[in-house]
Amino acid sequence: FCSQAKVLYDFTAEPGNNELTVREGETITITNQGVGGGWIEAQNSRGEVGLVPEDYIEVRKCLITSIQDKSSLEIEDAGTSEENASNGNDPWSVWNQDATGGSSNNWAAQPEGTVTGKSAAPDPWGSNTQGHPQAYQGPGAEDDEWDDEWDDVKSNSESGEGGAIQRGGMGEVGPVWSYPEAQLDCVVADPKKGSKMYGLKSYIEYQVIPNTTNRPVNHRYKHFDWLYERLLDKFGSAIPIPSLPDKQVTGRFEEEFIKMRMERLQGWMTRMCRHPVVSNSDVFQLFLTFKDEKDWKTGKRKAEKDEGVGVMIFSSIEPEGPDLDPIEVEQKCEQFSRFTKAMDDGVKDLLNVGQEHWKRCTGPLPKEYQRIGKAFQNLSSVFTSSGYQGEATLTDAMNEAGKTYEEIAQMVAEQPRKDLHFLMETNNEYKGLLGCFPDTIGVHKAAIEKVKEGDRLVAASKITAQDKATMAKRVSTMSYALQAEMNHFHSNRIYDYNRVMQLYLEEQVKFYETIAEKLRQAHSQFTTM
Amino acid sequence: FCSQAKVLYDFTAEPGNNELTVREGETITITNQGVGGGWIEAQNSRGEVGLVPEDYIEVRKCLITSIQDKSSLEIEDAGTSEENASNGNDPWSVWNQDATGGSSNNWAAQPEGTVTGKSAAPDPWGSNTQGHPQAYQGPGAEDDEWDDEWDDVKSNSESGEGGAIQRGGMGEVGPVWSYPEAQLDCVVADPKKGSKMYGLKSYIEYQVIPNTTNRPVNHRYKHFDWLYERLLDKFGSAIPIPSLPDKQVTGRFEEEFIKMRMERLQGWMTRMCRHPVVSNSDVFQLFLTFKDEKDWKTGKRKAEKDEGVGVMIFSSIEPEGPDLDPIEVEQKCEQFSRFTKAMDDGVKDLLNVGQEHWKRCTGPLPKEYQRIGKAFQNLSSVFTSSGYQGEATLTDAMNEAGKTYEEIAQMVAEQPRKDLHFLMETNNEYKGLLGCFPDTIGVHKAAIEKVKEGDRLVAASKITAQDKATMAKRVSTMSYALQAEMNHFHSNRIYDYNRVMQLYLEEQVKFYETIAEKLRQAHSQFTTM
Repeated sequence: FCSQAKVLYDFTAEPGNNELTVREGETITITNQGVGGGWIEAQNSRGEVGLVPEDYIEVRKCLITSIQDKSSLEIEDAGTSEENASNGNDPWSVWNQDATGGSSNNWAAQPEGTVTGKSAAPDPWGSNTQGHPQAYQGPGAEDDEWDDEWDDVKSNSESGEGGAIQRGGMGEVGPVWSYPEAQLDCVVADPKKGSKMYGLKSYIEYQVIPNTTNRPVNHRYKHFDWLYERLLDKFGSAIPIPSLPDKQVTGRFEEEFIKMRMERLQGWMTRMCRHPVVSNSDVFQLFLTFKDEKDWKTGKRKAEKDEGVGVMIFSSIEPEGPDLDPIEVEQKCEQFSRFTKAMDDGVKDLLNVGQEHWKRCTGPLPKEYQRIGKAFQNLSSVFTSSGYQGEATLTDAMNEAGKTYEEIAQMVAEQPRKDLHFLMETNNEYKGLLGCFPDTIGVHKAAIEKVKEGDRLVAASKITAQDKATMAKRVSTMSYALQAEMNHFHSNRIYDYNRVMQLYLEEQVKFYETIAEKLRQAHSQFTTM
Repeated sequence: FCSQAKVLYDFTAEPGNNELTVREGETITITNQGVGGGWIEAQNSRGEVGLVPEDYIEVRKCLITSIQDKSSLEIEDAGTSEENASNGNDPWSVWNQDATGGSSNNWAAQPEGTVTGKSAAPDPWGSNTQGHPQAYQGPGAEDDEWDDEWDDVKSNSESGEGGAIQRGGMGEVGPVWSYPEAQLDCVVADPKKGSKMYGLKSYIEYQVIPNTTNRPVNHRYKHFDWLYERLLDKFGSAIPIPSLPDKQVTGRFEEEFIKMRMERLQGWMTRMCRHPVVSNSDVFQLFLTFKDEKDWKTGKRKAEKDEGVGVMIFSSIEPEGPDLDPIEVEQKCEQFSRFTKAMDDGVKDLLNVGQEHWKRCTGPLPKEYQRIGKAFQNLSSVFTSSGYQGEATLTDAMNEAGKTYEEIAQMVAEQPRKDLHFLMETNNEYKGLLGCFPDTIGVHKAAIEKVKEGDRLVAASKITAQDKATMAKRVSTMSYALQAEMNHFHSNRIYDYNRVMQLYLEEQVKFYETIAEKLRQAHSQFTTM
């Protein structure tokens, strides 16, 4: 997605050659590396796209670093910071212990409604009225270990898999994750029924084929679920890990359901593959490269024992660039919070109206077109019985018109599967993704509050000035991570919504054009001499 | 509509000259008299159209005569004639008196539900659940006069206005009315508010402009109503005179209502103008050529004193051709009865589904499209607040897509006025027309039963053999009239339904094409590079 490059020398485009003028020091985004002939296609910050000589640029992995162009991030008023002072979601409680006593267990005090498991609502869009599907469950009782873990992992040479985010890159949009040169992708396909215990228990296995190995591996839903739990444990504090498609107890072998689940597992896997941090992790790679049962079990055991989970994710991030000002950190956090909340509302609104539209299109509307069609055909057959000569043209035409409306009825009923379906699926996926943000943002807000309290704690000699500086540095790191994640989210969102809207409108155009053509045909059969 | 001609000499068409081969004695229909150069355009019984020399044919008014080509009229089984034996609707009761006593008043015994006045249902299609709007009210107490009237009018030189149906013409379809050379037509337009009694009472005057004089005359609704009553009295036994558009008590000056009433008065007048017998009558001509108040009052008084009303209409018909066989008469009557009943059901069915469709198109459906549009626009505005660069293309496109669905919402809501309206109006008009047939057919059925009873009456010396022969002759005349009327109905129906279906489908095509085009526009704004 994001392959950034730094321009090494000025280059002036020759008009009419699809070239792009760039200036030394400018950062551009590579949009096509496969142009050949010593050229690459790139886009500058004004959105202009064109060819640039390969030798003039330095392609680099995107790193988390400081914001050079602050104007590209809208900074809004920090606003109601006081209101959040009592937020119980507090990753800094390790220091707080010193001030208030050893029994504080704030990590476990999750905001209401976020500690539930994945809901298993049978209706994919409708009846699930709870706020957000749970994605991130706080580390719970592990609160006291956080500070130690942070230091442990820093000296832990085994945590190399976090490397993808240990270096930071600077995009025009601010901090971004370090993206791999080649985009990982995989196909979920070919669901097959398997059985064990001499056929007493049966299950569905899905084939997963990564574009890196092209070697299919088979996984059951419960393997996906295991992967989800590992990713949530490991990355949930910094990266929204969306829920898997809902479990369903009955009708597990019903064809429609399997197809739908496969489609959604594909969507989930695609999203995980797209994420540079997730896709690069050992556990994710283990899932994609399953060799044999023994290998799998070893990998599984290792992943389950992984200590680099929970807030430890932040310890593996080392942003390139100065520490961020706490006020700026707070402003960004507020902005992301507002945005994700607003988008969540917008997405749910679209899902609601989409669901209503779906019902109408598959229920009363086609029935009505069918009735219109039948009424025309009925009149046609009455006219045929008139015994009057010269009637044939009219009765044939009316009969055809009637059939046309019956065809339209069927088209109307089938249309939602062709267009609305994808619009709903994408928005449903985003609903799940957005549901993960309140927790991530909550972690950040609590950390920010703690830093703000730092001065008082220093004055009261509860912590040292050095402790306070460390706290500020860590909040800065968390903010870099959040910004990188938001930028990842935004670039994916822009792509996804462009794509789904194109698909939707394309199918809608086809639909209305086909109806118009059918009716034009029907019209041509009538005659008034 | 129907201008028949008899071919006097054989004529063989020259190939490639658009000519039509005709044979001596053949009857052809003139389709264009204005070709010039000694040619007319005509259609033969096989539907072939071409030019024929004027001198080779004899143009004649269409006359009621016998059926030459029986195959062109489907003769169905007479069926349940016994069931109708007790039908009280009996125009022949004058003879029955001799057999059963003098007090029989069968004329007044109308079938249940047909003696009501015009209903004033405010909802033009929906809530009126009664069977048929009343059109023809039997002559009631005049029963005893019928026989006398018949003879009276025959010797009454003043009844010249019935002349249009005193001669019969032979169409390929069987008996047809004698049609005028030029089709009478009129425009109802320019409704104006007038007032009387120093402004205390106000009313609407409509301008009526016949194509014969091109001189506008003004008429209020009550004048139309007066005309309707006269036409019903005079022609109702033989010709369905459809009700006027419903009266409405409240909101008489509301613009929408006036426009609707004008449209329907136009439809009613057009139908009356099209009918050769109705349009040729003194009272109809009086209405179209209103000169001054005095002239109008004189004409009005004369029309109200007209004795050529009720069943007398049949006395002014003299079919060319032999008397019809009573069995054939009965078969035709049964066929027409079945057809009009079936069409009435079909029309009502279409009106019902049309009304439901209208409600959906103007109610929930556009609201839903509007909500979809708002949801897209809402997401667009949320995206705008992301602070992420390179968002503008997507947000503009989503906003446009949203506006497009709002436009579609408005189109959907406005569409029924553009197409469904005319489909509904035409079917509503036919519903009114069809509602007149049961009475007309009832009169015929009763007469047929009486003739069937004739032999018994002769055997019992209740009537003479001569009386029985006269009865059979009169039933034959009635059947000629009914057949001519059915043929008039059929040819109008074929024209009207072709026309309204063309209009409807044309507008439907435009509607769907416009939507497709709008969506294509919206689609083009999205991009996935």
